Amino acid sequence: MLDICLLGSGGVMPLPGRFLTSLYLEENGRAVLVDCGEGTQTAIRTAHKKFSRIGAIFVTHFHADHISGLVGLLLSFGLEGRTEALHMHGPEGLQTVVRSFLVIAPQLPFEIFFHEYSPTAPVKTVSGGLIVDIFPVDHDMPCLGYRFTMERAPKFDPDRARALGIPLRLWGKLQNGESVGGFSPADVLGEKRRGISVLYSTDTRPVEALDTLGKGVDLMILEGMYGDEEKWESARLKHHMMMQEAAEIAKRTSAGELWLTHFSPYTAEPENYLDMLKEIFPNTVMGKDSLCTTLSFRD
Amino acid sequence: MLDICLLGSGGVMPLPGRFLTSLYLEENGRAVLVDCGEGTQTAIRTAHKKFSRIGAIFVTHFHADHISGLVGLLLSFGLEGRTEALHMHGPEGLQTVVRSFLVIAPQLPFEIFFHEYSPTAPVKTVSGGLIVDIFPVDHDMPCLGYRFTMERAPKFDPDRARALGIPLRLWGKLQNGESVGGFSPADVLGEKRRGISVLYSTDTRPVEALDTLGKGVDLMILEGMYGDEEKWESARLKHHMMMQEAAEIAKRTSAGELWLTHFSPYTAEPENYLDMLKEIFPNTVMGKDSLCTTLSFRD
Repeated sequence: MLDICLLGSGGVMPLPGRFLTSLYLEENGRAVLVDCGEGTQTAIRTAHKKFSRIGAIFVTHFHADHISGLVGLLLSFGLEGRTEALHMHGPEGLQTVVRSFLVIAPQLPFEIFFHEYSPTAPVKTVSGGLIVDIFPVDHDMPCLGYRFTMERAPKFDPDRARALGIPLRLWGKLQNGESVGGFSPADVLGEKRRGISVLYSTDTRPVEALDTLGKGVDLMILEGMYGDEEKWESARLKHHMMMQEAAEIAKRTSAGELWLTHFSPYTAEPENYLDMLKEIFPNTVMGKDSLCTTLSFRD
Repeated sequence: MLDICLLGSGGVMPLPGRFLTSLYLEENGRAVLVDCGEGTQTAIRTAHKKFSRIGAIFVTHFHADHISGLVGLLLSFGLEGRTEALHMHGPEGLQTVVRSFLVIAPQLPFEIFFHEYSPTAPVKTVSGGLIVDIFPVDHDMPCLGYRFTMERAPKFDPDRARALGIPLRLWGKLQNGESVGGFSPADVLGEKRRGISVLYSTDTRPVEALDTLGKGVDLMILEGMYGDEEKWESARLKHHMMMQEAAEIAKRTSAGELWLTHFSPYTAEPENYLDMLKEIFPNTVMGKDSLCTTLSFRD
């Protein structure tokens, strides 16, 4: 099971009732955070999530609405007595930016490991129980998109295990992918099974990676910066995405569901665009603060 | 008239429903902000105040809960198209700290003038129509307190103006302190009159300056970090103030009113201490987010 919570749904600047876009993903008690604008620590509390579970923070890019909450969150981690290391992932320069913010808190009681990416093609990393595909997108500064996948172990075949005479006490280890007692997982495991995947990308024009890595994801979370037809020019100029474009991507990739977020401060009621978007992609959901769901393995 | 708004009432970290302590003061359409922790820009909007009126920001010290909202606020000023210069006042090192934050926004469309103080005794400055007394307090890092005074012109004496044969058209200029037509303001103005004064000090042990500069202020805004009797030791160790100590200061200085703020995150209901505090100083008010008032000249 993968718990997903859109902590905030705003872009550019925080507003009363609308925190800045940030995503919280938790599997097996371990969580990652994606983006951390001003107010994110309050949004985490509002959504009743726990600071201590966050093992990694992924940053899309260095615009303030995506990172201005970092210093407060890191200090609050420290005030809560955190000693566990934190992993931070983001574009090249991440360490420089975070260290600059920490001018007011040069000493934290935990270590930070920085993972910087300047990919020209998608790269992979692992965070807790998640496989993370990191890909460049098209904004007015280096910006990354992320796909998080929770893999599912292939099905265990008890008939084959019995036929091979494997003692019962070894079944669990083999099921978990471990070779033991002269047996290998391949002896008793079937075909690979579909996992759970979530793609998160904001502050970008539509790019090919969204179509390729978005193929069949369970949940696609994309920016819905503008919905007004007259905003196409702004979207292109400022390297943002129209809600309509996001819905088209979700349609092309056959995503399970599309959540829109990162609404322009001038979009007072994003819901007004929902009927139009459902004509393009019926499973469109307008993001809002503390929109949470739990995804389970299918079948 | 002086408009005063306590934007937030929290200390240490922002909580849902409790922004970090920050004060907004406005006279004649010009405002100053004191402290700017994470979320302050949202708190300004919640209190229906205008960014564009803020001409100066005063910072008490460099703990995150007092400055972590600066980068977001300065960027929002820029996004709103501000070109008017901003004056920032605070302890020595202010420029270094703010410039470090602005690593993600090296270019703002307005100029910032930094005024740094390392006073061993109170110093004075002027901001818009306010005279500001700046004084060192006792925290675990350099920290400043501020007293803001809106002066009142002495009363104009029409009998003396008539007796001196001053033409009517000159009365206004003389009233405003300008010498004109061979007459000086002293010819027609009476005794100095009482202005309006507000003292703001948080993150400190009681210090003598609070008693001397607080003498007879209309409004005293002090921290109420702890109220529990068992917290005296913490207060001393961490250089914070007990609510009881704040009430004693307000009593000694005969302040018009005392607002408490900067509550510890563990103080869920500050109101629980109010009856006890009113025994010490009856005009004690428990601060809360968006607590606003307007002070007028007396008589």
